[in-house]
Amino acid sequence: MSSHSAFDLVIRNAQAVTASDTFHCDIGVREGRIVQLGLALAGGAREIDAAGRAVTPGGVDAHCHLDQPMPAPMRMADGFASGTRSAACGGTTTVIPFAAQARGQSLRAAVDDYHRRAEGQAHVDYAFHLIVSDPTPTVLREELPALIREGYSSFKIYMTYDDLKLDDGQVLDVLDVARAHGAMAMIHAENADCIEWLTRRLEAAGRTAPRFHAHARPMLVEREATHRAIALAELVDVPILVVHVSGREAVEQIRWARAHGLSVFAETCPQYLFLTAEDLGIDGSYQGAKCVCSPPPRDKANQQVIWDGLNDGLFTVFSSDHAPFRFDDPQGKKPGGQEVGFRHIPNGIPGLETRMALLWSEGVMAGRITAQKFVELTATNPARAYGLHPRKGSIAVGGDADLVIWEEREFVLGNARLHHDVDYTPYEGMHLSAWPAMTLARGEVVWDGTTFTGRTGHGRFLPCGAPTLRPWRRG
Amino acid sequence: MSSHSAFDLVIRNAQAVTASDTFHCDIGVREGRIVQLGLALAGGAREIDAAGRAVTPGGVDAHCHLDQPMPAPMRMADGFASGTRSAACGGTTTVIPFAAQARGQSLRAAVDDYHRRAEGQAHVDYAFHLIVSDPTPTVLREELPALIREGYSSFKIYMTYDDLKLDDGQVLDVLDVARAHGAMAMIHAENADCIEWLTRRLEAAGRTAPRFHAHARPMLVEREATHRAIALAELVDVPILVVHVSGREAVEQIRWARAHGLSVFAETCPQYLFLTAEDLGIDGSYQGAKCVCSPPPRDKANQQVIWDGLNDGLFTVFSSDHAPFRFDDPQGKKPGGQEVGFRHIPNGIPGLETRMALLWSEGVMAGRITAQKFVELTATNPARAYGLHPRKGSIAVGGDADLVIWEEREFVLGNARLHHDVDYTPYEGMHLSAWPAMTLARGEVVWDGTTFTGRTGHGRFLPCGAPTLRPWRRG
Amino acid sequence: MSSHSAFDLVIRNAQAVTASDTFHCDIGVREGRIVQLGLALAGGAREIDAAGRAVTPGGVDAHCHLDQPMPAPMRMADGFASGTRSAACGGTTTVIPFAAQARGQSLRAAVDDYHRRAEGQAHVDYAFHLIVSDPTPTVLREELPALIREGYSSFKIYMTYDDLKLDDGQVLDVLDVARAHGAMAMIHAENADCIEWLTRRLEAAGRTAPRFHAHARPMLVEREATHRAIALAELVDVPILVVHVSGREAVEQIRWARAHGLSVFAETCPQYLFLTAEDLGIDGSYQGAKCVCSPPPRDKANQQVIWDGLNDGLFTVFSSDHAPFRFDDPQGKKPGGQEVGFRHIPNGIPGLETRMALLWSEGVMAGRITAQKFVELTATNPARAYGLHPRKGSIAVGGDADLVIWEEREFVLGNARLHHDVDYTPYEGMHLSAWPAMTLARGEVVWDGTTFTGRTGHGRFLPCGAPTLRPWRRG
Amino acid sequence: MSSHSAFDLVIRNAQAVTASDTFHCDIGVREGRIVQLGLALAGGAREIDAAGRAVTPGGVDAHCHLDQPMPAPMRMADGFASGTRSAACGGTTTVIPFAAQARGQSLRAAVDDYHRRAEGQAHVDYAFHLIVSDPTPTVLREELPALIREGYSSFKIYMTYDDLKLDDGQVLDVLDVARAHGAMAMIHAENADCIEWLTRRLEAAGRTAPRFHAHARPMLVEREATHRAIALAELVDVPILVVHVSGREAVEQIRWARAHGLSVFAETCPQYLFLTAEDLGIDGSYQGAKCVCSPPPRDKANQQVIWDGLNDGLFTVFSSDHAPFRFDDPQGKKPGGQEVGFRHIPNGIPGLETRMALLWSEGVMAGRITAQKFVELTATNPARAYGLHPRKGSIAVGGDADLVIWEEREFVLGNARLHHDVDYTPYEGMHLSAWPAMTLARGEVVWDGTTFTGRTGHGRFLPCGAPTLRPWRRG
Repeated sequence: MSSHSAFDLVIRNAQAVTASDTFHCDIGVREGRIVQLGLALAGGAREIDAAGRAVTPGGVDAHCHLDQPMPAPMRMADGFASGTRSAACGGTTTVIPFAAQARGQSLRAAVDDYHRRAEGQAHVDYAFHLIVSDPTPTVLREELPALIREGYSSFKIYMTYDDLKLDDGQVLDVLDVARAHGAMAMIHAENADCIEWLTRRLEAAGRTAPRFHAHARPMLVEREATHRAIALAELVDVPILVVHVSGREAVEQIRWARAHGLSVFAETCPQYLFLTAEDLGIDGSYQGAKCVCSPPPRDKANQQVIWDGLNDGLFTVFSSDHAPFRFDDPQGKKPGGQEVGFRHIPNGIPGLETRMALLWSEGVMAGRITAQKFVELTATNPARAYGLHPRKGSIAVGGDADLVIWEEREFVLGNARLHHDVDYTPYEGMHLSAWPAMTLARGEVVWDGTTFTGRTGHGRFLPCGAPTLRPWRRG
Repeated sequence: MSSHSAFDLVIRNAQAVTASDTFHCDIGVREGRIVQLGLALAGGAREIDAAGRAVTPGGVDAHCHLDQPMPAPMRMADGFASGTRSAACGGTTTVIPFAAQARGQSLRAAVDDYHRRAEGQAHVDYAFHLIVSDPTPTVLREELPALIREGYSSFKIYMTYDDLKLDDGQVLDVLDVARAHGAMAMIHAENADCIEWLTRRLEAAGRTAPRFHAHARPMLVEREATHRAIALAELVDVPILVVHVSGREAVEQIRWARAHGLSVFAETCPQYLFLTAEDLGIDGSYQGAKCVCSPPPRDKANQQVIWDGLNDGLFTVFSSDHAPFRFDDPQGKKPGGQEVGFRHIPNGIPGLETRMALLWSEGVMAGRITAQKFVELTATNPARAYGLHPRKGSIAVGGDADLVIWEEREFVLGNARLHHDVDYTPYEGMHLSAWPAMTLARGEVVWDGTTFTGRTGHGRFLPCGAPTLRPWRRG
Repeated sequence: MSSHSAFDLVIRNAQAVTASDTFHCDIGVREGRIVQLGLALAGGAREIDAAGRAVTPGGVDAHCHLDQPMPAPMRMADGFASGTRSAACGGTTTVIPFAAQARGQSLRAAVDDYHRRAEGQAHVDYAFHLIVSDPTPTVLREELPALIREGYSSFKIYMTYDDLKLDDGQVLDVLDVARAHGAMAMIHAENADCIEWLTRRLEAAGRTAPRFHAHARPMLVEREATHRAIALAELVDVPILVVHVSGREAVEQIRWARAHGLSVFAETCPQYLFLTAEDLGIDGSYQGAKCVCSPPPRDKANQQVIWDGLNDGLFTVFSSDHAPFRFDDPQGKKPGGQEVGFRHIPNGIPGLETRMALLWSEGVMAGRITAQKFVELTATNPARAYGLHPRKGSIAVGGDADLVIWEEREFVLGNARLHHDVDYTPYEGMHLSAWPAMTLARGEVVWDGTTFTGRTGHGRFLPCGAPTLRPWRRG
Repeated sequence: MSSHSAFDLVIRNAQAVTASDTFHCDIGVREGRIVQLGLALAGGAREIDAAGRAVTPGGVDAHCHLDQPMPAPMRMADGFASGTRSAACGGTTTVIPFAAQARGQSLRAAVDDYHRRAEGQAHVDYAFHLIVSDPTPTVLREELPALIREGYSSFKIYMTYDDLKLDDGQVLDVLDVARAHGAMAMIHAENADCIEWLTRRLEAAGRTAPRFHAHARPMLVEREATHRAIALAELVDVPILVVHVSGREAVEQIRWARAHGLSVFAETCPQYLFLTAEDLGIDGSYQGAKCVCSPPPRDKANQQVIWDGLNDGLFTVFSSDHAPFRFDDPQGKKPGGQEVGFRHIPNGIPGLETRMALLWSEGVMAGRITAQKFVELTATNPARAYGLHPRKGSIAVGGDADLVIWEEREFVLGNARLHHDVDYTPYEGMHLSAWPAMTLARGEVVWDGTTFTGRTGHGRFLPCGAPTLRPWRRG
């Protein structure tokens, strides 16, 4: 600390918030890392006055889809460039999208391809989850173990979607690899056969408007698959993380598992706090296609179930499940330019940029959750779940200087102020009372409160280590 | 930082652990507070080399009894002097014993009396819970609200013990004050009538050896009272914290409450992880009196239930419930010098000094819980539950420099190495693999790994603020 | 069968229904008992043509209050004469009201007094439950065991009502007698302290209209006491029967008990199928006093819970809880002639005469339950629960010829057509589609479809034996 | 009744037991039907003195396999001749085996073939369940509806076994037919993929002895499929009956369903009361193959769970699941004459003849269940579940004179006294205290206590009507 400037950057007067604490301090940064937290730190080459405002760790969005190859004509609107730009402007400084194996493809090839898509594009750091859609013996015995060692320590298992889903035997095979090599298995839990059966009946009855998407995926479809996933994990004796839990019935199954000593983690998303099935269009309007995602949003009572679950520790992670399809687009929600039946509407909604502010505004500022819980859900736990902690996910000495300075202000959310390449936000018109005044990614300001200021290629690939949420085996 | 020494004290080379993070750093202390965390801090007037060892926040023991007035001939062996000495030597730097109202006594008088007992005696900081045994209108309308404002923001409600227990209507009255004034209500949940009924039958059958204490308090006695406490809190719409939860049946009720959106917090203690009912004496030996506490320890399967509950968030707080009665003493476990029937054995076991090491050794080092979970349970959450956070309970800029440096070493626990005034420890002969190498209380070394080095009167009274575990009302 | 007439009475062409079967037959009666069931029976001194209509066992109403001494100024409108007249006209041929011990009174004296009230009055047979309000050692050790032996093999335990309630220790004492002597313990499960606490708050807020009776007794008040009763019974290891279960929360506790292997039986009543809290007066009208009973009726969703519980075996018994207080009467719902606050309104509603037809019409004929289930709930199980089977409760050789011949017809229920001495029915104006065309009590026609034809004194006291619902101890 | 003999047969002095009642009477039979129940009946062409012994309805075994086509080299040892002979000698007078569709076969052809196998062979009456293994559109739209109308109103759905199992979509299709046409769907609930996965691992580890059959089918495999079956039935909104429930985990799921208002019926079998997994051979002996059935027997604690479930109404039906494979036989448990790995051992155990006596002796006489419950589980409910009531399943006027007269006597069960064509019984050496003294099938004595006295061809095919257990739709 004998240089002219002790730090490359000092953030003065921060009300720092971690998953366990709140403290007033200055934050000293050197070479992109936090090197000192303290009162009255020495000077920095650059100084930023936080003015007593809350400063949280930059968000870790552990569930988002960017430039993921899709069946034609669908195409994701956001790649690594626009996706991470959007993330940065919303306070997220780490993204973990999915390297998805196509059937017949090697997993390694999928990873290599995905690196090519990311290379030099990202504005914030990124890691990869894997999607295993074809667990051949080679995948199970060679590719997965090697990839886990190399830093791809989490993968997603689909129980639905024709091109992705695994049968129960395949799920067991993949979970067994997770157990042997200490990887985190994420599960999309919906019963594919039930959905198909209901969809056909709805179609036969001419019920194909977007809102019937929710009719084809009632809560029991999610509950059944959640119970099944838990049973499969129990059989293998391995932790799992159930993604995008939407409401009461799946929550009950997860509580049951916990009460039986099983390590079942759970994720939820903004859409289950702020949308309902009515947003898919009460009247059958095609506007509802904007909110078609799976599982679908439920109702107000289920939103409360999700809030309760955030507070009491049921949920480990709060992610966006950003799946960027433009509404008025032949590659998006109008495939081939047409309004189509709900079966053919690409599933997913944008949310990378809004995730943090929605929860800070409606959770912390509205008094529904503590600031610590916010940090735990949006940054610390995602980093711990996927082996990026302590480098990511907190405000701590030695960690990356990924930070969000929060500004309290009333405004109306609209897609015009967002930075993704999607032409809508499901939260258009919502009144919020906070937004990041500044986002720093490894010490660089990438969002200054009005403008994206990041650099293409600033984001680097992060190899992931082992999950550290809790001991892997039952104590 | 321009003085000759920037800090009064610098702890170098610490592997600091908080409830959310682990980071390598130096810790700079001035006037008893942490003022800087960083790499390569400037020099301190005193320097301590942590040598890369784990450094955790000093423990907050939120449930311990010191010099609490007892019915004759019983007398607690530890007052504030020996109690806080013992705490310090075991890594605990904050204690919250109980100012207990006697029937007919004003609550204020109980508090004043307790201050006199503590004044100038304590080696580490202390706060007071209140015990409300006589909720007169004056207590409810005047004393409690005033005392809460003054920093006595938690109180304990007994559902058993003739001299302390409240009936359901009184519990409702007291909870209603907690709700109105934001205080935390702790509940000792056992059904008094059931215990009395079973005790009489055991006595009538001549079954009075210490081990029958456990027969008089089976799990359903605790389960019933836990359900009732939850129902009363639900009626009033107020959070509660169920103390010293012993096993499966009470745990199930608490899980039920959580699943219904209720704010029910829970505490457990070392005796429910490391003792079983067999420790009350399989053969009827009076040695079992050493482990007579309420609820009684259960069995191995229930120990696992408690470990699972620590891991998955069911438990908020890990306390000692230190209740210091000497074994071979007419004021202790042999009232009047006699071996007596279990009904007459004072309830409670010592544990202030062993709480932290037991959980670090058998929890963290044995791989059953993470180091973060250890800090959360032993320090951060107790501080948050009782309004002492962020001053206490973490390693953070601005917080008190209450710290434990841990040493890994194999040894056999024995009462000879402990510093309380009790003549036994229930854990005699247990093999542990860690003990504090050093304890600091507000920057002063109070335990150096071999010797108690604290000063009488160093400990100060801490007024408590509002609980900050989660928003007081359902979001 | 060599007499001129083989039978005193033959009912021809019956569609007989038992709890397990339906069969077409003639029913041959001699000396008040069924002596033959068959096709083309020989002739009877009297013959009745059932014309293929359903014939069920006469109802056993195992929960009704008649001429029970009440605190002044309250007085029950029905004694044994009008009560059993009303029963007969509604298809009930056995009633089991309560011999209630007053505090300070011996139980034997209460029984003797109650016999005096019944003697020579009853039109149908009757047995007595006991109410134990003062379980002195004499009561526990001498009176109860002797009375059980003499045919008073069931008693009711109140957890609420100041003049009746037992504390938990007393409940244990009484349950222990039930266990030792094979008696059936009925439990009124509501938490008295909660009710008192809520009542005071409602009164303090001026909320004293009848409808606030339901606010003072929310479901959790019943749930808590139900859980407690189950725990007490579990401790003693004895079956219990929870009376007048009103809805979901208590039902869940009973399901929990069953799932844990406990013998917990349950009763429900018409008011929980056909009334809701709104019947206590949405607008605060004093008419709501007519429906003031405890627990109060809940809502439509809870009615469905009760229907489900009837179907799936959760409920063992369906009773009226007939508690006859006149509405416009200084001894009834207007004590001293006044409209009073809900605390002072006598609890209870009339229902002896309507119980059977309500369930046959809305249950069996509406397709909600089978005819077998109807018989099981209204006759067979009550007889088995209280030791009156096989003499009562079925249509079987050797059993009493207590029979109901059902007539399908649409009509509007009104108090004008009822035969109790109460001046209202809570079901005024309800459309029903069945009513007994004839009731026979021990072979005598006591109701012919239009007129009461019974004889005073025809009804006899029935000593009760042991319950036969299931083995007393876990198999 | 003016003929010389009023009856073809009179059974004098019977202690008749039905599912609801017990009564002393004579039983008058004409043309195979009960025409009179009464005291001192007129004379019969034949008279039998029951001597006050218990007389129950003849058993209805609703789950047994006879002459069911199997993959080579397996062959069932019992066809209709030996199977119904064995049934008769054990007190069972109605059997409902399975007409199993092979893949590619029409359901009608399977039924026709099965009639050919039964024609003229049966000693007692029989009906057919269907097994649907290939639900083609023709099966769903034409064959099943027609067959249900013709009296095949129940079918079994397999979730495991390669040649029989349906996927979830097919299950939904078949359940939908059950719903539309009022048929009862029986579900064999085990997760096929889990079993295959575990089996491969056990095989890879060389663990192929019979006892590993139980390791390949742990309770969670059954629990998961049970939950899934319940979810599928809930989606379709149709009752189901889960067959051969083995223990706690599946029971919990069924309780859960009931608590949510779903019509889920359940069956259990003697093997879950009287065998444990240890009977598959602790030491790896091949004798364990005798007890290989699916799900496998569990342990003592689970036996208690099943007893509790019998008592409290969880179980609707008690069947044998008779699956007759000889032990020392190349067509049986030693395929091709060899001892084989557990995967290749035919699943199933004999039990038609022992079912009734096991439950009467160890249930009723041992005081674990009432005699009424015995009749309900073994006769009345099976008849009601499958549309054979009131003709079968009770002792009632108009019903078939299918009766068992019970004799209390101590003896040791051995295969030598049984009448099936299987060369062992799993209950060899068990001490029983009752056996049928006589069995009557439609008024003919088919077992006289020592000798089979039935006539080939006496048994007739019974078309089944609609289930009458409870209303088909929620009330």
